Amino acid sequence: MTGKVITCRAAVAWGPNQPLVMEEVLVDPPQKMEVRIKILFTSICHTDLTAWKGENEAQRVYPRIFGHEASGVVESVGEGVEDMKEGDHVVPIFNGECGDCVYCKSEKSNLCQRFRVNPFKSVMASDGKCRFSTKQGNPIFHFLNTSTFSEYTVLDSACVVKIDSQAPLKEMTLLSCGASTGLGAAWNTANVQAGSSVAVFGLGAVGLAVVEGARTRRASKIIGIDINPNKLLKGQTMGITDFLNPKDLRKAVHEKIREMTNGGVDYSFECAGNLEVIREAFLSTHDGWGLTVVLGIHPTPRTLPLHPMELFDGRRITGSVFGDFKGKTQLPHFAEECMRQEVKLDEFITHELPFSEINEAFQLLVGGKSLRCLLHL
Amino acid sequence: MTGKVITCRAAVAWGPNQPLVMEEVLVDPPQKMEVRIKILFTSICHTDLTAWKGENEAQRVYPRIFGHEASGVVESVGEGVEDMKEGDHVVPIFNGECGDCVYCKSEKSNLCQRFRVNPFKSVMASDGKCRFSTKQGNPIFHFLNTSTFSEYTVLDSACVVKIDSQAPLKEMTLLSCGASTGLGAAWNTANVQAGSSVAVFGLGAVGLAVVEGARTRRASKIIGIDINPNKLLKGQTMGITDFLNPKDLRKAVHEKIREMTNGGVDYSFECAGNLEVIREAFLSTHDGWGLTVVLGIHPTPRTLPLHPMELFDGRRITGSVFGDFKGKTQLPHFAEECMRQEVKLDEFITHELPFSEINEAFQLLVGGKSLRCLLHL
Ligand SMILES: NC(=O)c1ccc[n+]([C@@H]2O[C@H](COP(=O)([O-])OP(=O)(O)OC[C@H]3O[C@@H](n4cnc5c(N)ncnc54)[C@H](O)[C@@H]3O)[C@@H](O)[C@H]2O)c1
Ligand SMILES: NC(=O)c1ccc[n+]([C@@H]2O[C@H](COP(=O)([O-])OP(=O)(O)OC[C@H]3O[C@@H](n4cnc5c(N)ncnc54)[C@H](O)[C@@H]3O)[C@@H](O)[C@H]2O)c1
Ligand SMILES: [Zn+2]
Ligand SMILES: [Zn+2]
Ligand SMILES: [Zn+2]
Ligand SMILES: [Zn+2]
Repeated sequence: MTGKVITCRAAVAWGPNQPLVMEEVLVDPPQKMEVRIKILFTSICHTDLTAWKGENEAQRVYPRIFGHEASGVVESVGEGVEDMKEGDHVVPIFNGECGDCVYCKSEKSNLCQRFRVNPFKSVMASDGKCRFSTKQGNPIFHFLNTSTFSEYTVLDSACVVKIDSQAPLKEMTLLSCGASTGLGAAWNTANVQAGSSVAVFGLGAVGLAVVEGARTRRASKIIGIDINPNKLLKGQTMGITDFLNPKDLRKAVHEKIREMTNGGVDYSFECAGNLEVIREAFLSTHDGWGLTVVLGIHPTPRTLPLHPMELFDGRRITGSVFGDFKGKTQLPHFAEECMRQEVKLDEFITHELPFSEINEAFQLLVGGKSLRCLLHL
Repeated sequence: MTGKVITCRAAVAWGPNQPLVMEEVLVDPPQKMEVRIKILFTSICHTDLTAWKGENEAQRVYPRIFGHEASGVVESVGEGVEDMKEGDHVVPIFNGECGDCVYCKSEKSNLCQRFRVNPFKSVMASDGKCRFSTKQGNPIFHFLNTSTFSEYTVLDSACVVKIDSQAPLKEMTLLSCGASTGLGAAWNTANVQAGSSVAVFGLGAVGLAVVEGARTRRASKIIGIDINPNKLLKGQTMGITDFLNPKDLRKAVHEKIREMTNGGVDYSFECAGNLEVIREAFLSTHDGWGLTVVLGIHPTPRTLPLHPMELFDGRRITGSVFGDFKGKTQLPHFAEECMRQEVKLDEFITHELPFSEINEAFQLLVGGKSLRCLLHL
């Protein structure tokens, strides 16, 4: 196959909120510093959902192949790629690491100059073109450096991480986004300390990965907050010590949390993608030192509902992309920790379906029924 | 005098924006854990100006004695005060340190539970009463734990710092607010590193104290930004390497700063008290690691003009109260550094007037003519 165009199946988005269409697409060979991989498993993250809904009009580009949480095997590599070869087990990363730019060289940031998250980007960095096309020869656009809803996809090598060939690829799919984002937010961004208290808003895969991160750091109190009462049970399995459903409370969540924690938690995490939740998360931390980490994607044009004087209470707020992991440098080690069962990933896979049923998988997430539904390609 | 009511002169505010009235007031003796001090020097900080203007209606309480930047001598102490006695040289601090509360005991915060900044507070903490009264016996309210626009004032001992009796009290006045706030923001809050780049928005006493803090930390680039062109000269004396007047630019300040600094400064400081300036300060830092420290007081009810997704670019923002100094613990040492000329304070005193001309001193600050006008009592 190397050097040839591959014809394969992909789930193509043709418009906002429209069911994905499973169709045959052409996938070009990888160019210089690119890698073509055969996707074995992919799952759906809420970020795919947001993009699929197309709430942010400026980001609408069609036809497009979504998907960024996956695992697979290298099919072929382009000129200059030396850290991977055909057959290697890999996970795509939507937040790449070129290793060369000022950010990659800085210890302070995981935002690569060329391959950082950019929802507006829909073509390859090297030549501004698409590697996907319809059988009629029209381009199909890329998404988040990855586009994993396809049997084959082409990525820049900065966005592909080689992992141990013994690592279970099913679970490794989670490393591609959800697990790394949540665990990394707890470990790297917040640096949760043993004995501290934590509030996690939104118990999807991302929020529960934060819970897992806080649990492995031996936080003494982990409060899970979700408007979906079904999240209680899973939350408890994962280690939350308390559960709050805002709909059942007669007061603001932050007031309740402050009561429960003698003034507020040390860390709060917003994993719901809701602006009002950011405010609740912010106010639920202890003044003087509380830190709020925003992980949710906020498609609304509205600005932060915080008053500048509220910063004077010593609460801090920060964003976290991909859990502040430098993907290529740190994920192989993280994969090993998962293999040693220091971190449990299997709990996140609540459903499995064949690739052809991707629209059902979307509905499972929309309905709050699944954490991650693994699609088999 | 000990134990007796003192009759003295004070500059009393009777309503928003009205000239202060110099009149005779009665000052009660200090109660348990309180200290009565004779003010020798006081100056006017922009926070007094904001309170005097009364833009925030909820904070309007009259008659009131403003003022929080001062130095003086202990006249008498109340029951239980052991760290100070009559004749000691002291500076009042509006952000007190009781030493006992969870915040005072934490290394992470300088916000004392009982004596933190609270613009709504207008009475003594111990009994909710005023120590000032008119000759007719009506209460005159306190301000920011201090009320220094009076020949004598009563403070909780948590809000009084004893300094070396050899320290020059004139300059020490600045330690009471402006210098500590600015230098501390650079040293403690931002922890400016040698060789780094800094942008300071608003070159009043607070902003120039940040400049001094950045200079002593050997920052390599210190950009001063002010809409008042007269700030250029003083800024240069204090160590700015570049000056920008937003009114003279054809582009947004943050764009200009990014050009000048290869992508943005490492630290920016908002010392103007303007919401749009917060946004410019935020965007003028380098993405990935830039930190914006908000020092300005923002009386507007409007919220932060930042979008949650902008947090994903790795820029951080934090507030800083009193430069994150723990006043009673750290100011005596800071005073010694000033005595050794490691930090220059005299540059901040641009004018001196008798106490009776306090309204002229207000106008000097309103007109952007003074940094600090020292009033002699
Ligand atoms: N920062 C990053 O790098 C990054 C990476 C992946 C995902 N994300 C974002 O993280 C968020 C979570 O992703 P996910 O895949 O776990 O989504 P998910 O849909 O599985 O989970 C979201 C959870 O939030 C809950 N929720 C919704 N509104 C709520 C409210 N008002 N209060 C409390 N809970 C509420 C939902 O019931 C659900 O359980 C999304 O916004 C996603 O786009 C960010
Ligand atoms: N956080 C704290 O603990 C603390 C302590 C003291 C003062 N403050 C606040 O810090 C701020 C500065 O205090 P100060 O005493 O130095 O005030 P100041 O009036 O002496 O200085 C403010 C400076 O900002 C400049 N400025 C105004 N609008 C501007 C704009 N749009 N762009 C650029 N520059 C602009 C003015 O020309 C002036 O030089 C005030 O808001 C004050 O209330 C905060
Ligand atoms: Zn994701
Ligand atoms: Zn890079
Ligand atoms: Zn002040
Ligand atoms: Zn205290």
